[in-house]
Order: sequence, then C-alpha cells, then structure tokens
Amino acid sequence: MHRNVSDSFPRTIWSMMKTWRKLTLGPLSLVYKFERSVSVTRNKTRRLNPESGEIDAHALEAIKSESAQGSSLRRERGVAVIVGVGPGFGHALAHRLADDGFEVVLASRNAVRLDALVKEITLRGGKAAAYGCDATMETSVKALFSLVTADHGVPRLVVYSIQSFGPGAVVDVEVAAFEDGLKLGSFLVARSAAREMLPRSEGTIVLVGSTSSMIGRSGHLNLAVGKFGQRALAQVLARELWPRGIHVAHVVIDADITDDQTPIDDLAHSDPAHIAQVVLNLHEQPRSAWTSEADVRPWNERFWEHC
Amino acid sequence: MHRNVSDSFPRTIWSMMKTWRKLTLGPLSLVYKFERSVSVTRNKTRRLNPESGEIDAHALEAIKSESAQGSSLRRERGVAVIVGVGPGFGHALAHRLADDGFEVVLASRNAVRLDALVKEITLRGGKAAAYGCDATMETSVKALFSLVTADHGVPRLVVYSIQSFGPGAVVDVEVAAFEDGLKLGSFLVARSAAREMLPRSEGTIVLVGSTSSMIGRSGHLNLAVGKFGQRALAQVLARELWPRGIHVAHVVIDADITDDQTPIDDLAHSDPAHIAQVVLNLHEQPRSAWTSEADVRPWNERFWEHC
Amino acid sequence: MHRNVSDSFPRTIWSMMKTWRKLTLGPLSLVYKFERSVSVTRNKTRRLNPESGEIDAHALEAIKSESAQGSSLRRERGVAVIVGVGPGFGHALAHRLADDGFEVVLASRNAVRLDALVKEITLRGGKAAAYGCDATMETSVKALFSLVTADHGVPRLVVYSIQSFGPGAVVDVEVAAFEDGLKLGSFLVARSAAREMLPRSEGTIVLVGSTSSMIGRSGHLNLAVGKFGQRALAQVLARELWPRGIHVAHVVIDADITDDQTPIDDLAHSDPAHIAQVVLNLHEQPRSAWTSEADVRPWNERFWEHC
Amino acid sequence: MHRNVSDSFPRTIWSMMKTWRKLTLGPLSLVYKFERSVSVTRNKTRRLNPESGEIDAHALEAIKSESAQGSSLRRERGVAVIVGVGPGFGHALAHRLADDGFEVVLASRNAVRLDALVKEITLRGGKAAAYGCDATMETSVKALFSLVTADHGVPRLVVYSIQSFGPGAVVDVEVAAFEDGLKLGSFLVARSAAREMLPRSEGTIVLVGSTSSMIGRSGHLNLAVGKFGQRALAQVLARELWPRGIHVAHVVIDADITDDQTPIDDLAHSDPAHIAQVVLNLHEQPRSAWTSEADVRPWNERFWEHC
Repeated sequence: MHRNVSDSFPRTIWSMMKTWRKLTLGPLSLVYKFERSVSVTRNKTRRLNPESGEIDAHALEAIKSESAQGSSLRRERGVAVIVGVGPGFGHALAHRLADDGFEVVLASRNAVRLDALVKEITLRGGKAAAYGCDATMETSVKALFSLVTADHGVPRLVVYSIQSFGPGAVVDVEVAAFEDGLKLGSFLVARSAAREMLPRSEGTIVLVGSTSSMIGRSGHLNLAVGKFGQRALAQVLARELWPRGIHVAHVVIDADITDDQTPIDDLAHSDPAHIAQVVLNLHEQPRSAWTSEADVRPWNERFWEHC
Repeated sequence: MHRNVSDSFPRTIWSMMKTWRKLTLGPLSLVYKFERSVSVTRNKTRRLNPESGEIDAHALEAIKSESAQGSSLRRERGVAVIVGVGPGFGHALAHRLADDGFEVVLASRNAVRLDALVKEITLRGGKAAAYGCDATMETSVKALFSLVTADHGVPRLVVYSIQSFGPGAVVDVEVAAFEDGLKLGSFLVARSAAREMLPRSEGTIVLVGSTSSMIGRSGHLNLAVGKFGQRALAQVLARELWPRGIHVAHVVIDADITDDQTPIDDLAHSDPAHIAQVVLNLHEQPRSAWTSEADVRPWNERFWEHC
Repeated sequence: MHRNVSDSFPRTIWSMMKTWRKLTLGPLSLVYKFERSVSVTRNKTRRLNPESGEIDAHALEAIKSESAQGSSLRRERGVAVIVGVGPGFGHALAHRLADDGFEVVLASRNAVRLDALVKEITLRGGKAAAYGCDATMETSVKALFSLVTADHGVPRLVVYSIQSFGPGAVVDVEVAAFEDGLKLGSFLVARSAAREMLPRSEGTIVLVGSTSSMIGRSGHLNLAVGKFGQRALAQVLARELWPRGIHVAHVVIDADITDDQTPIDDLAHSDPAHIAQVVLNLHEQPRSAWTSEADVRPWNERFWEHC
Repeated sequence: MHRNVSDSFPRTIWSMMKTWRKLTLGPLSLVYKFERSVSVTRNKTRRLNPESGEIDAHALEAIKSESAQGSSLRRERGVAVIVGVGPGFGHALAHRLADDGFEVVLASRNAVRLDALVKEITLRGGKAAAYGCDATMETSVKALFSLVTADHGVPRLVVYSIQSFGPGAVVDVEVAAFEDGLKLGSFLVARSAAREMLPRSEGTIVLVGSTSSMIGRSGHLNLAVGKFGQRALAQVLARELWPRGIHVAHVVIDADITDDQTPIDDLAHSDPAHIAQVVLNLHEQPRSAWTSEADVRPWNERFWEHC
C-alpha cells in the first residue's frame, strides 16, 4: 500500500504545522517544524494483463496500434528517473522516454497519483514504475536512489522538474514561502544521481528551469530565488561532473505548457512532447559536443515574459 | 551585557547540535535542529569621554587630527545600517559612512566584537552603535529593525554584506552547508528594511555580491547558490521597490579585499575604503538615474576569477 | 569555369589594394578600396557516373557500403544552404545533412575548393551543389539566393558559419581588420534567407557563434565585435521572424573542432559531426518548442575559455 | 572658419552619393562611396570678454552667481574629451565636467553647433573648446586627438556617446543602415584615446551604451548590432588596458533622457546631469576598485524596455 495518511489531513491545520517554529531554551533555541512523513514507496514495473479486466479491450487495441510504430524501433536505453511528474511536461516526458526504450522511473510525493500513467505506459509496451518520494528530504531522496539502483540498475538519465510558485511582493513573502523556493530538491536529486553515476563515468542529469531562472521579475521572488539557485547548481555541476563523464544540462522553459485544461484554441503554448524531445536530444549528445544550457519557447510567444 | 553564552560552547558538540534532525511520528515528522539563542543586544551610541581614562590621550590626539578635515564637511545624513561587519569591507564602510555624517548602526552575531570599531568611530567624532543580531533568524532581524528605528529613526541606507563559504565538490556538500549558502539573511534584512522605508518612500538597500553571483564555478556550490539567489532577490526588489521610492542595488565584488592580514606587497586587492565609496555613490544617486548593478575589482586583476 | 582570376594575384599587392583609401575632392571625399570580383558561380548538382572513370571503383564500393545504412532512412528534406564551408565543421555538416536527405547547397568564396566535397557526397548517394559567393557583398549574396531558389527551390535550412580572426591588442588593430570582424555577411545571408522563406512561413536560419559571442577577451577585438554583433542579429531576427514561422537560432561553439590536422591524441576537441547534429536537432524542433540559443563544447574542456 | 561646405548640399542627392557602389574591372572591383569632407576644425578655448558686448550683462550676472558655489570648489582636473555632444546628455556632461574643473573638449561633426555651449561654459568660468570631427573616419579621429593633445594636453577622460538609430525590420534594413550601426566610431575614438593615455599609464575611457547593448529587440537591428559590438569593445579594452593603468567603463543607459523638448510632466526620464554624475564617479574611482559596467535608469521606469 502506498497511500500517505497525511493526504487526508485538514489543509488549514497542516499549513500551521509546517511553519517553522522556535523554542528558546536558555542559550540554545530549538528550531522545528512538522512535515508529512513521506516514506519512499515502490510501485514496481508491471505489464498489465488485458485478460484481467483491468482495462477495456477496445481502449487497449487503440493504444496498441497507436504505439506500434514506435515499439518497432524501441532500443534498450536503460533507466531514466523523472523527479516531479506533473500532468503536462512530466507525463509527456515519461511517454517519450518509454517509447524510446527507457525503463522509466517516476517519483512524486504521492506515487498513487502516478498509477494511471504507469498503466498507460505499460499498455503501450513500455516499462514504468512509480515511487513516492519527498524530494526536499535528504533521507527520502537517498532512499529513492538506493531503491531505484537496486530494483532497476544505475540510472542513465535523471530529470528534475519540480516547480512551485507562490506569487507575492517581497515585503509580503513569508519565510516558509521563501524557503519553499530554494529548491533543496534539485541539489538532493542531482547529488544522489551523481553519486550513482560517477562509478560508471556515464549519465545525464537535466535540471528544468524557467524564465525566472534568468530574470527576477516583480512578484516572483519565491520562484526566482530558487530558480537562480538551481542555475548556479547546474553551472557548478557541469564544471565538476563533465570532466568525470556526467553530462549536466539546464533547460530553460520560457513558455506555458499545454495540459488537459488548456483550451484548444490557445496556441501560445509549448506541447510538452516537444520539450521532452529537447531533453532526449541532450541525453543523446555524444560527449565531444555537449550543451550546458538551452532555452525553449513556442514560436508565437514573446521572449522572457513568463514565470 | 551583550555576551552570548553560547560563545563558550564546545565547538564539536555545537556542530552536532546544529544539524537538522528528523523524528517520525506516524504520519508526521518533526524536523528540528538547535541554534544558538542570539538575542538582539544594544550597544547604544556614546561619545567617549577622554577624561574618563577610557582611552590614551596621545592616541586620541592622533585620531582627532587625522579626522579633522573630514569632520568639517560632515553633514546630517541619517541612519545607515550595516548587517555583517567583517574586518575588511565592513569596518571600512562603517568609517566611510560615519565620516560622511551617517549615524552608523552595526549588526553582527556578536556585538561585543564591534566595540572597538564603535569606539574608534566615536573618537573620530562620528556616531555609531552596535547590535547583536542573527541575520538568519526572522525574529532576530525583525527585532533589530524595530530597535534601530526606535533608537535612531528609520534607516536611510541598509547594506547587507554577510558572506560565508565552505568549498567542496557537489557530491560531498552536506545539506547543512548547502542551506547555509542560501542567504535567507539577505531576504530577511531586505524585507525588514523595505518595510521600514516604504512609509517614507525613501531609502537605499545595497546587497553585496561576489563573482559567484554571476558564475557557478567548480567547488563553489555553497557560495554560488546563495549568491545567485541573492541576485534574484536584488532584481525582484528593484522592480518592486524602485517605483515606490526605494533604491535597491547589487554590488558585485570581483576582488579580494585587503585587511590587516594582507601582505603589503600583494597589490592585487581592493582597498575596502574604495568599495565603500561605490556604496556611498549608489546611495547618493538622485532617483532620476539609479544604478541596479555594478561590478568592482582592482585594475590589475583578471576578470571573473574570484569566489 | 569557375576559377577566380584574382587567386593568382600577388598577396602583398593585394593587401595594399584592399585597404580603404580616401580622396578629398573639395567638400566631398571619395572613399574606396579594391576587392576581388567574386561572381556567383554554379557547380550544379550531379550524380557522378562510376563508369566514367572519374573515381576509383574500389573507393566507390567502400564509400557506398559505408553509407548504405544512412541511405535506407533517407527522406526528402528539401534544400539546405551552408554559407562558409570550412574543412572541419562545414564538411561534417554537409555530410550530415546530405545523409539525412537534404539537397545540400554549399557556398564559399571559391567554389572550386568544394568540388571534392560535392563529389564525395554525390558518391554516397546524396545531392550537393557548390556555388562561389562573397558573403560580404550584397549583390553576391542576393545573386546566390536567387540562383539557389531557381535551381533547387526555396531553402528550408540556412546555416551561416563563416569565422575569421586576426588577433591583436586594440591599440594595434587596423580599421580594415576591425571591419573584417563586423560580420556583414551574417546580416546579408540571414536577410536574403528570410526574404526567401517568409512567403512560405517556414524555414530555419542558424547562425554559428563562438566563445567570443559571449565574452570580449583580451586580444580578441576583431572576433568579439563581430560575434557580439551577430548575437544581436540573432536576437532581433528571432523576435521578428519566429512569429512569422521562421526559426532563427544561435549556436555558440565554445570548443576547438577537430579536422585533418588535429593530432589523434588531442582529445579536448569537438567532433564536427556531433555539432552538425545539434544544428539538425534545432531544425527538427516543432514550432511549439523552439530553442533560440544553445552552447556546445566537449566534456573535457574548461568553460568559456576559447576564441 | 569652421563651416562645412557640404552642409548646404541637397539632402536627397547626398543620400544617393553616400551609398556604397561597386565597379567591376575584370578580376577586381572598385568599391566606393562619397563622404562629406569633415576637416577637423578648432574652436579654441576662450574666456569671453563681457565688455566686448558679446553677451548681455544681466544674463552674465545671473550665470555667474548661479555658478559661484561650484567655482569655489573647482580643482584642476585636466582635459576631458566628449565625442558626440547631443542636446541632452552631451550638454549636461560638458557642464558637469567643466563645473568640476575639467578643461572640456567637445567634438561633433559640426563644431559650429557647439558654439553656444562653449560660450555658456566659458561664461560660468569654465574652460571649453569645440572641434569638428567625423568619428567614423580614421584620419579625422587621429587628427582630433593630435590637435587636442597639442592644444590642451593628454586627455584624462574621454567619453564616447554617439548614438544613431534607424528602426526597421531586418528584412527591410539596407546595408548602409546596417553599417551605420556598427559604431566604428567607438573603436576609433577608444583606440586614439588609449594611444595618447598609455605613455602616462593613466586615464579613463567611458563608452555609453543603451538597452540595445544588452538585448536585441524587434525592430532594433541597426542599433543593437552596433551596441552589442561596442560592449564587446568595452570588454576587450578593459581586459587589455586596466592592467596598463587605463580605466575603461561601459555605462548602459536604460532610459529616455530629458532635453528641451521633454514635456515637464513626463516624469519617466533621466535627468542628463544625473547620468553625467555617474560618469564622473567612474572617473574618480581609485584603481583598487574600478567598475567595468553599470546600468542607469529612472526609479519609475520598467527595466530593459528602452532602445
């Protein structure tokens, strides 16, 4: 079972509890907050059995025929880990990588929400597994990478694409919101990924940034501080890890991305499958010609005007 | 009395205590660490009385004559707060601002260490006061600015120049070191400064960065993540506060700065008094022509090759 | 015949003649210099006939078998124009694009020098043609694009990769060398390419830059001024042409590129075929996710330390 | 006499004549255009004599009393050369430098237009002289600096602030307009200034840029190409000349500047006198703490939204 009990926790009380508090004890203070316990949960690869009645036979046929062409070209690509699997980019990247032959490991706070995606990929003949992981907790991230390596092997490609944004003027931003933006997660994930990859001197780490990685816009403190910091991380990592065989790249998405809620006639969006292709291209670069940073936006968008 | 008891605390035990810990309590976890209690302590302005025997009469004469010329031009400039007063730049800035007529408020973790500087400034005819403050604790920073405004008035100029750097390859950096680099302090100080200044639509906030504000060099993760984040803060603050009358500026020091330990023949250093002048120039800019970012380095240095 | 008579012109006299001169005629001056006449010459597509004895039969077999796999996947990709075809990157890009199914048009000052390359591509089953063109002369560039469109059709992809560099300290740089760096060529080529592409609202223009596109290093005036200017051109073009369906991208090569003279054990070089792939990836991006700028360098190189 | 005969030349004919033309002569081509002959003309320093009736006595009194305070602090500052003296920034800078004690040398295409300014400065007790010079002609710039050094001495400060902008989409920009943007002038002026200053290992060269130095906006090709190139020049010069004692700095004016035509209630403009102060501050920096680049804009403007 991989449900997190805290999902049913009242949201308002939760907000109160997760705030940093401080208790002064003479010359020392105890600084503390409460967090949801996110144990790393597995949801191991499975090939669903259509006879089991888990899925409608017609839907299955449709999916199968749609994915036939891709399958024929499918190679053994090894393990790809995606940390932060949102409904737009995360889903598209998972499908793209699975279609390309990767064994896709998906990690999110709540692994249950990834069940449908794992099922879809599996039905199309791909390999996928979901893990619950809190990317901002060191132990959780370490446990994730230990499990992944044990279950699937050392990852070849790790993509970090968690983003959270609470708008607000600087004078109104609370400390908790400020720290939320600090992207400890990208550090923890990149560090663990690097530690797994280094013995083989091989692998790709992609950090996904946004317009706020480049410009600190009014009202975007909480996003920009974290995204600037992540860009620093990407630069340091590239200089430290490229010479040891690990390709670290920073993708700056200066775009809104379509998902199920996007109105069909709203053209100024990036199709997440196309951004997924950019990530795949970076992974496929031979080491004689690696890219460290590339931006992406749709043709009909203004430059550097997004979050 | 403004001694912090924790100063006498054994360093090894302290290192252990200040590490983040986590206690899992069913669906919740308690995340905690211990911190030194830094109460904001005052060290109010005082004009030392030479007759009191607090200072040698000869030394006094020397200082007085040296500062005579500056004094004659001294204007009423209002209150300037310096958060982070190191032996190089912090001291020089304090002297420069005091000579220029500012009432200088110095804030550091340990106010006692600022006593000598307060005394020097006072003897030269300037006004200075020292406060103990932990810039990374929200309550401490809030208390500092409340006290300063109550004791001296709303600050006209606030300079944040705390920097700490623990070198290390990314794969070896610990979470505590990573978070140490995150410069929560510059956010807390800038936010409090802005809140005090906004009702008067006037004031200058200067954030001091370094080479690592612009480039993520190998081995500099902990510095670069914080400095990139601080630059994001400076950009957001400028866009939010300039139109409300507050001048926010980012000074990038791409230099080593001389202090007492610098060998006299090591010329490739910036004189901190000259950097202090850059800060003063920024503060004096009329609002029709404000600068948001300027770099500083000595004439005989390579560009962008420092920390 | 497409030999340029001026090739046999003595170099020293030529140097004298191509310098700007000025003749004052009362209130007016005549400013002039001499240039080689570069007429746009064609070298139209041809499939060499092995029976003709133009090429050794064994060599032909080797080339054919080597290119067999690529050929089977070859699609109709349309016309690609490469302006500036050096022995490293230019040759590799020509081969890569031809293998991928493009009809490759090569343009250089001296079309004769491209004969061998056209022959190689043709023998491998690809399509190629060479044109002589002086990219710095407006009439020459206009004539090139008229001919190309008439002979082959509107280009789908145009790559500008001319680079010339004369090192020297600013105080010693002569005006002619300074102007040589100004890359009028990238403007002329991009403008003509855009004019051809706009009626179809389709096409890709790639401008190839270098480290000196980003940093003005000591001794690199002549290169940096032109490369900075070309980056400005790329930014303006992207903002003007993306919304009209033309993908403009800037590739920053922060690397030395291998060619025939590169010692085999000198590893810190980019393989030009790998950089060619980056160009091809940019061309293949769907318009919902276009990249405007990407850097490329080998894994074992220092960042931003090249020309 | 310092009138240029060509001033009376019909504008339409002139436009035709100054276009580049090409005459093919067998293997060679003659590339040529006509230019106005701009001889470097002097307008040497003079202290106007009020008794001569050249100026109204009342006006004189007003100007004198207004400038009294400044005069009392006036030091000997040496020679400052301003190349490009527009009605906004150029005039303000000339006044500011003269008030500060510099002997101000003004250079523009048409020295006659500077007569009024020279007179104003002289009446206020300052020293000024005007020279006619075409900054885009090598001989003209060389002659200017020879004359200035002979007449006044080696310049301590040289400011280049010529800007010309012809808006237009890239596909419509003509070669002449493109080349006009290339700012050969800033190279010629900086090179001559450096050659004069180097023997004394002393001096400041300030290149004035704009928003288009940093971003290539739609419609701004002609401006951006030149301004990006000038920024490259500034970066190269700084790395080459700082270690030899010459301070080179780049000032990015991201602002509209007020002049006589600016409506009084249009507040979002920079006062040119305030920008002049930024230039003066740069010149006064001691060599242990030099700035290479600083931006300037008014408090109530959007960032990076100008030409």
